[in-house]
Amino acid sequence: MSGPIDPWFARKGLALLTDFYELTMMAGYWKEGRIKQQACFNYFFRSLPPHAGFSVMAGLGPFLEYLEHLRFNDDDLAYVASLNMFEPAFLDFLREFRPTCEVHAVPEGSLVFPFEPILQVDGTLFETQLIETALLNFLNYQTLIATKAARICLAANGEPVIEFGLRRAHGPDGGVSGSRAAYIGGCTATSNVLAGKTYGIPVTGTHAHSWVMSYPNELDAFRAFARLYPERCVLLVDTYDTVKSGVPNAIKAFQEMRALGVPVRPAIRLDSGDLAKLSKIAYRMMRDAGLDDPLIVASNDLEEDIIADLKRQGAKINAWGVGTHLITSFDCPSLNGVYKLVAVKENGVWAPRMKISSNLDKATDPARKELVRYHNADGEPIGDIIYRAGEPWAESGVITGRHRVRPHHEAHLPEPAARAEALLQPAFRDGRRIGDPPPIQEIRARAQAQIAALPDEFKRLRNPEIYHVLLSTDIGAMKDAMLDNPDLA
Amino acid sequence: MSGPIDPWFARKGLALLTDFYELTMMAGYWKEGRIKQQACFNYFFRSLPPHAGFSVMAGLGPFLEYLEHLRFNDDDLAYVASLNMFEPAFLDFLREFRPTCEVHAVPEGSLVFPFEPILQVDGTLFETQLIETALLNFLNYQTLIATKAARICLAANGEPVIEFGLRRAHGPDGGVSGSRAAYIGGCTATSNVLAGKTYGIPVTGTHAHSWVMSYPNELDAFRAFARLYPERCVLLVDTYDTVKSGVPNAIKAFQEMRALGVPVRPAIRLDSGDLAKLSKIAYRMMRDAGLDDPLIVASNDLEEDIIADLKRQGAKINAWGVGTHLITSFDCPSLNGVYKLVAVKENGVWAPRMKISSNLDKATDPARKELVRYHNADGEPIGDIIYRAGEPWAESGVITGRHRVRPHHEAHLPEPAARAEALLQPAFRDGRRIGDPPPIQEIRARAQAQIAALPDEFKRLRNPEIYHVLLSTDIGAMKDAMLDNPDLA
Repeated sequence: MSGPIDPWFARKGLALLTDFYELTMMAGYWKEGRIKQQACFNYFFRSLPPHAGFSVMAGLGPFLEYLEHLRFNDDDLAYVASLNMFEPAFLDFLREFRPTCEVHAVPEGSLVFPFEPILQVDGTLFETQLIETALLNFLNYQTLIATKAARICLAANGEPVIEFGLRRAHGPDGGVSGSRAAYIGGCTATSNVLAGKTYGIPVTGTHAHSWVMSYPNELDAFRAFARLYPERCVLLVDTYDTVKSGVPNAIKAFQEMRALGVPVRPAIRLDSGDLAKLSKIAYRMMRDAGLDDPLIVASNDLEEDIIADLKRQGAKINAWGVGTHLITSFDCPSLNGVYKLVAVKENGVWAPRMKISSNLDKATDPARKELVRYHNADGEPIGDIIYRAGEPWAESGVITGRHRVRPHHEAHLPEPAARAEALLQPAFRDGRRIGDPPPIQEIRARAQAQIAALPDEFKRLRNPEIYHVLLSTDIGAMKDAMLDNPDLA
Repeated sequence: MSGPIDPWFARKGLALLTDFYELTMMAGYWKEGRIKQQACFNYFFRSLPPHAGFSVMAGLGPFLEYLEHLRFNDDDLAYVASLNMFEPAFLDFLREFRPTCEVHAVPEGSLVFPFEPILQVDGTLFETQLIETALLNFLNYQTLIATKAARICLAANGEPVIEFGLRRAHGPDGGVSGSRAAYIGGCTATSNVLAGKTYGIPVTGTHAHSWVMSYPNELDAFRAFARLYPERCVLLVDTYDTVKSGVPNAIKAFQEMRALGVPVRPAIRLDSGDLAKLSKIAYRMMRDAGLDDPLIVASNDLEEDIIADLKRQGAKINAWGVGTHLITSFDCPSLNGVYKLVAVKENGVWAPRMKISSNLDKATDPARKELVRYHNADGEPIGDIIYRAGEPWAESGVITGRHRVRPHHEAHLPEPAARAEALLQPAFRDGRRIGDPPPIQEIRARAQAQIAALPDEFKRLRNPEIYHVLLSTDIGAMKDAMLDNPDLA
């Protein structure tokens, strides 16, 4: 189950998932006879979420699926006509529209950094404009959540992290798309059954307080649950009083199962109170009762800092259920990804463009690009260079570039490179995605491998090292000249 | 266009939009022969978003639509079967499932406050459990965004606020559902065309920097746009240099249109830089050029505090485009709404239930309920009382209740009531919603009217007065007794 199987998540009927100004501009290009004007846009973000040293690219698969299905159907056109702003001939033109752009993208699950061209679109200005909003919507959200998940998993230090966020997600799709991204970022499972069905993500769960409250007493509720699910029995012990009632009743239920010869692994969930203290007490009580190696799942507004702090306190927790903070990226609920024009084709040649800003950091980097990642002899990434497409690039050795805010200034990657890797891969052409969509497990494995290869200093929860991303000599010189002479931009 | 018209937003195929533990509990109730056990659940939230004095209930319509379409289809059942945890007979039972619960709810667009039963579900434990996650998903997100929109609109003080958030929303549905909620909360329009089509929300927009950059120069770009859309021409003036280039070129374009006899209203958008200063400069330049009463739209990471501060500085801005902060409720991206068991039917009689917690504030309020809002003679709301369903309640006069954390303590609404209003209305019964879905304009008008009637002290941006919500004498006494004797809970 690698691709969406539910009609609701087949990305169809989304031609109007766009900002109104895209339509007015498209009508403008059409009216002005500029529908064939070719343009190149880059998707990039300007800063990582707070405290993050890297981010995990996600959302590419759903975006490409949207692009494959991009058509204006009759009720889209009827709606657009009802706005009384567009000529019937323009609507006819929309009816015939089929995507013809080319997309190059960093493979989903790759680590990416600020200002890198994560995705590059070549196509008519008309079409590149139409898809802007949907592209940003898919990539910004899923990259944000995959990145948050990766940080939470780093804090959990290899222990399973289960995504529990659906009830606090931003709508049904926020939940299902968020589960997908969280799994790519490193979560081991989700509670969201529709995400399990749609994307083949493992699903898991325990029971709710209401299960316990619906029985005459807690012990009967536990006995019933253990009888039903002996192999996956995790008992929620905090409905009444964790220490006085919940844990003793859970122990009794597990002991009764064992007495019946059922080889059940003792497992409880703590969902409130002092998780560090309660987990240690519960662990001791269970061990003292002969229940070794218990699984103790914790939940309740967890995030990476709380998990790290619980570990620091020696909490006896070995699985983590994370909901609200993960599915909303609570401390930073948006990634500031943007999509900017970097070149237009003039007389068959790509002419670079840049947006100049009084804030130098916000000035864009001109030209169609290649993105190259360099690794040292140990296979660790040492930095990335943003080349102009077609510019020759070194495979190894001392790698030279320019700083993007001070592009007149030569700079170098911090150590010699042993290997180079071009990151932008062909992803969409002739109206179709290139190749079959990779299974989500493959995307997740890529993220896991790249996170494992990344040196520790980029993976700290606070003040991570800043990963080196430089402009190439060509783009640096071009940007420098344009900043000196805005008429070139 | 009052209801969804796009198949993607018809809330079908969502039976599995639920947490996995709901399914395991449902299988448990089925296996234990408890599928007819009746239960009552309440949806409520524990705290308002930071600095908010009220919230605007939204999401009810989409939730009821989900409920109407709630069926397990073949591929849902095939997926559940693939998990190898459920008996075939249980899957057959799911196949026959049809919603039979009854829902009472506060009308969408109403103002609601912490701990109020905003929605009450009576049904089999089986079914009330199944719908928990989807209910929380729809109501938490849309109520959060409607509330944020209301605060932003209060800051804008009657000037139009346009929702621009799609590119930073949490997935396509985060965008479209968020646009719906933002409109209910008071926004005047959205940039999201699919939201316009799906929910009949007015759409609007200007043009992007790329429009300007795709032309040889800014003036030509402005001329082209003004020629295309003389009646809705808002020119984005910050692509190069707002004061030296953008505003002078916009003035020239508008003057040329006027010289041609086109009665165009001069309108610009500022999207970067010092909005207070630039808006004043732009206003003066336009007025000095004979362009009176210009529309000056501002955007760029706006939220209620920045809007209030810009107004304090006398910024010459008269329309506000708000994206990221609105669509994600950036400063608090989740509403902590929960759904708790409050009663079970025993021998045909509702027996109240409560979840006791060491944190008294987290202890739930037992019993099936009525929610009554009292108004003073000026029509202002003075407070709400949470009654036990069936408990007699006063229509006017001095209104007595109990404090929910100290329920042994008698308390009163702060002034005598002139009028009472039962808030929970029948919303769903016999598998169908009750009545036609109200047009979104009606929902929005309800919110606008209730916000207008709410005294100013609840509408401050900081430290708003706390609205009075009390338990009734009956529920207070019941809760008091249960806290003293947890066996009653």
